[in-house]
Order: sequence, then C-alpha cells, then structure tokens
Amino acid sequence: MSILVVGTVAFDAIETPFGKTDKIVGGAATYICLSASFFTNKLNLVSVVGDDFPNNAIQMLKDKQVNIKGLQIKKGEKTFFWSGKYHNDMNTRDTIETQLNVLEKFDPIVPEQYQNSEFLMLGNLMPSIQKKVLDQMKTRPKLVVLDTMNFWMDLFLDDLKNALKEVDVLTINDEEARQLSGEYSLVKAAKVILAMGPKYLIIKKGEHGALLFNKEEVFFAPALPLEEVFDPTGAGDCFAGGFVGYLEKTQDVSFENMKRAVIYGSAMASFCVEKFGTKRLTELTDEDLESRVKEFVDLVQFDISLVKN
Amino acid sequence: MSILVVGTVAFDAIETPFGKTDKIVGGAATYICLSASFFTNKLNLVSVVGDDFPNNAIQMLKDKQVNIKGLQIKKGEKTFFWSGKYHNDMNTRDTIETQLNVLEKFDPIVPEQYQNSEFLMLGNLMPSIQKKVLDQMKTRPKLVVLDTMNFWMDLFLDDLKNALKEVDVLTINDEEARQLSGEYSLVKAAKVILAMGPKYLIIKKGEHGALLFNKEEVFFAPALPLEEVFDPTGAGDCFAGGFVGYLEKTQDVSFENMKRAVIYGSAMASFCVEKFGTKRLTELTDEDLESRVKEFVDLVQFDISLVKN
Repeated sequence: MSILVVGTVAFDAIETPFGKTDKIVGGAATYICLSASFFTNKLNLVSVVGDDFPNNAIQMLKDKQVNIKGLQIKKGEKTFFWSGKYHNDMNTRDTIETQLNVLEKFDPIVPEQYQNSEFLMLGNLMPSIQKKVLDQMKTRPKLVVLDTMNFWMDLFLDDLKNALKEVDVLTINDEEARQLSGEYSLVKAAKVILAMGPKYLIIKKGEHGALLFNKEEVFFAPALPLEEVFDPTGAGDCFAGGFVGYLEKTQDVSFENMKRAVIYGSAMASFCVEKFGTKRLTELTDEDLESRVKEFVDLVQFDISLVKN
Repeated sequence: MSILVVGTVAFDAIETPFGKTDKIVGGAATYICLSASFFTNKLNLVSVVGDDFPNNAIQMLKDKQVNIKGLQIKKGEKTFFWSGKYHNDMNTRDTIETQLNVLEKFDPIVPEQYQNSEFLMLGNLMPSIQKKVLDQMKTRPKLVVLDTMNFWMDLFLDDLKNALKEVDVLTINDEEARQLSGEYSLVKAAKVILAMGPKYLIIKKGEHGALLFNKEEVFFAPALPLEEVFDPTGAGDCFAGGFVGYLEKTQDVSFENMKRAVIYGSAMASFCVEKFGTKRLTELTDEDLESRVKEFVDLVQFDISLVKN
C-alpha cells in the first residue's frame, strides 16, 4: 500500500506580478509528494538531484515520511533548474532559462522495495523516462497516473503515445488536450484521448476548474474563486498529488471516489498558488484542508427537485 | 405576478465556423422571452421594431403567451439590425455591421397594465433607456435584473452606474466585470461591483460557467461541456430569461433559490448555442429541459463526508 512518485526535484526562480524569488526548491515530484503527504505517509520517491541540493530540502521530504531511497544524488553535478515569468493574467508564462543538468542523463532506478507500489504517479518528465519507471514495476499497479505537458507533445509525441497505452489516468490542461487530440471541443478531445489508452482523463483548466472523464461519464470540479493568485507554479502537481494521495488513503479507485479525489486535488492546488513556491504547503494544517474542501462543497452545492410541477 | 422584459427585438445576420445565416430574428428581448416562456406565461414585452418585422415572428411571441402591448411598431421605419462573425474559439466575435434604425429614437413606454409587474428584466440596451423603464414602474418590483455589456461601459458609464444603484441583480461577463471594477480577480471585482448598488452579481464565463455572488456568499454553476457550440448568439439572454423565469415561477428570490435559477438559466443557454439563432429554443420541450438539468446535477454532484478519519 504505497505511492511511487517519479518526477523532478529541482530549483525554480519565479517572477510573477507580485514579486520574484531567487532559486527556491521546486520540481514536480516535490510538489506531488508535499501534497500527497496530507493523505498518506507511504510515499516512495524516484528522482535525481545534484550535490548542490540543500540537505534541509531533503529533510523536509523526510519529515513528511517520504521514502527517499530512490532519490539519486549525483556528486559533482548540478540540480535541474527552471526560471520563468508569469504574465499579468497568471495563465501564461515565459520560460526564461532551463538548465537540465542532472536530468540530461537521468536513468530512473526503482528500488526493489518500491516495485510493488500500488499507485504509480508519473509526474511531468520525458515520456521515455516515465515509461522506464513503469517497466520496472514487478506487479502492475492498481492505478497509474501520468502527468505531462505540451513540451513533450512537441518533441516526443510517439514516446508519449506509447506510454499512454499503459496508463489509467492522464492529467493535462485544456490547451494540451486540444493539441494531443486535434479537437477544439473538450468533449470531442476527451473521446479521442480516451481511445489512446487512458481509462480516465483529467483536463485541468486552471482558474476555470477541472473535468474528469471516463468513456461514459463526466464530472466537473470548479476552481475556488480566489482573491489573489500569487504564484501558479506547482499547482498542477499539487492537484495530482492530492488526487492520487486521496485515492491511496481511501483505497477506492471508482469513478465516484475519483470525483472526491478531484475535489481534494483542487483544494491542494488552491493552497499552492497562495504563496511563492512550496511555502503555503509546508505550513498547511489538516484543519485548513478540511475547511477548504467545505468551501468547495458550498461553492457548487444546490438542491433541485426534478419532479415537474 | 409577471415579468416585464425590455430589450431589443431585432434582425441578426450571423457567421460562425459552422455556417452563416441571412437576416434572422434575434434581439435580447426575443431570446429572453423565448427562454422565460418555459417557466411562466406572464411575460410583458416593451420593445420597438419597424414595419419590416415579420408578422410570424410577432406571432411566435404571442404563441408563447408574451403580452406584446408594449411592442411599438414604427411605420415606415426599419428594425434594429446586427451582423457579426464569430472566431474559431467562439468566445470572441467581430461586429460587421450595426444599423440602429428604430432604436435610435426609442422611447420605451410601459403600458399601465405592466406597471405593477413583480419582476423587471432590463435586457441589454442603452442604460438610460433601461432607467426610463424602471422609472415608469408604479410599484418597486420584487426583483430588478439588469444585463449590460462593455459597449455601454465604454460610452455611457455614468448612466450605467446611475441605473445600477436601483438594480437587484446585475449580469455581465468576466471581461466586463473586470472592466467595470478595474480588478482582475473576479472575487475582488465582485466586491467592487456589489458596492455600486446591486445586491447580487452574476458573472457569466461562457464555456467556463457562471458565478453568483452576494456580499457574503458565492455559488458556481458549470457550463455543460458540449460537443459543438454552433452559434453563441443569444446565450446570455437565454441565461437571463431562464434565471428570471424560474424565479417568477417559484416566487422565491432567496440566494438558495437563485442557485437553482442559475442552473436553469445555464441549461437554457446550453440549448440556445446548439443551433443558429432561436431555432433550438422554438423546438425545445419541457422534457428536454428537465433532462438537461439532470445532466447539470450529474456533472457537479459529489458526496464528501467531512468527518475526519
């Protein structure tokens, strides 16, 4: 009973209309683990950093009960670094710099004790690396979730499609769903993408919420209307971490329970954007989370009696 | 017990990626009345057309029990005409031509028998005309709903702000809420706008749903994910018509009931866009509507027990 998380552990430098940061700790797997740790303490991390990565950041993951046996620390090499600048609407951003560093030759090794993890969360990474992790699993996980982005669709579409054949849940944003499917309508896009392999598709629409599709059904979760979006970095990863963390905690991968998981994922994402980097996540309490989920319930609940008068 | 509707009755010529129409019957009040007629047969129309407006279109309104005593028919003059072209994303459009014609000197006269209408729906029109209608009411309506657009904010902002002081519910889209408030965040925008007079604000986000605010609460209604959006013309008016129609039918203007009214309004809008112009509305049945509302319920319903384990 555990979640294997693969993804980047990295440095980010972020600029938003509200301010800018120097190098701070980020990376998809970091956000996923921090978010999922609110639901489970059975997290196995596979990633890579250089020896410039600070001990206290590794300790932060350990404190959240994340198993870091699969975190490779490369002597004499540098950690992956990304810097970007968000535009005023916070929905678009420019990449200022990407230094692949240790990621360039990253060969993920799944420790034996991880190879029976029930849940596999393939965070945003080169599709061939995601596939390599999947291939090392001794038993087929109960649920495989894959997150990806337009960058990989541009460069390694075949690898991505290859990986998708073995995936249960794909999470992408609306523009990526359109790119991957060639369809503008998200309903049509979902049909095309579900025919590529995934049984479930989550389309993340940022401030406009998220859609969960299977072949027959669709569920919509709103985003919480927020006064300020301070820094969107990591929101999608927090969503994924909350989603898979909730499923692991509840040990129920039905569509009904995935709806709840999407709400919890959305709640985690809504916290993530309130401060720079991982800050809001590290100070978050269980009570904060429950009260935020209650806000989601209040936001969408209505009571319509469908008996016609 | 009735709704007074003021707004345009007009001709439109529409081009979308799916095709184009010649002059067809449109106008805010037309869509509002057609939509509201699914909920109530107590509709009083105030508008103006030229003698080029076809009898069968007037008959269509009469068939829906719309009282047309307040529809002025100007001899020797021409009906308001708008033509526009939608872009591929269907969220933006260009106006190709606007012929004000009879609208240029429109002086709305509210017949005496309308002056006690309980609900007043001020459809998108010049704010000073909306105000003139409001001023002719003998008793203050139970609920005054005003719809407007960026065009009036650009040209007659003071008149609009003046009208807003006496309005209960304002319906605008997200860009218009940003323009009117000067705030990018819709939560902040709502606070600013609610301080201008309206007790309730509905922000329409097109394919991304709608938000209903009062000073303390917020409710979110999704848009139904559709395979095709054929022609968005009139969707906002159908929303308003469904909203106010449902409130009139149920005679309950509480926030809880407004949530249901927003769902019914969204359902009406979702039909409107399925065919060109008013076509889908004229063939719609009560059963279609109930089954569509059921889709909205299914789309957002989830069951989270907030007892922490």
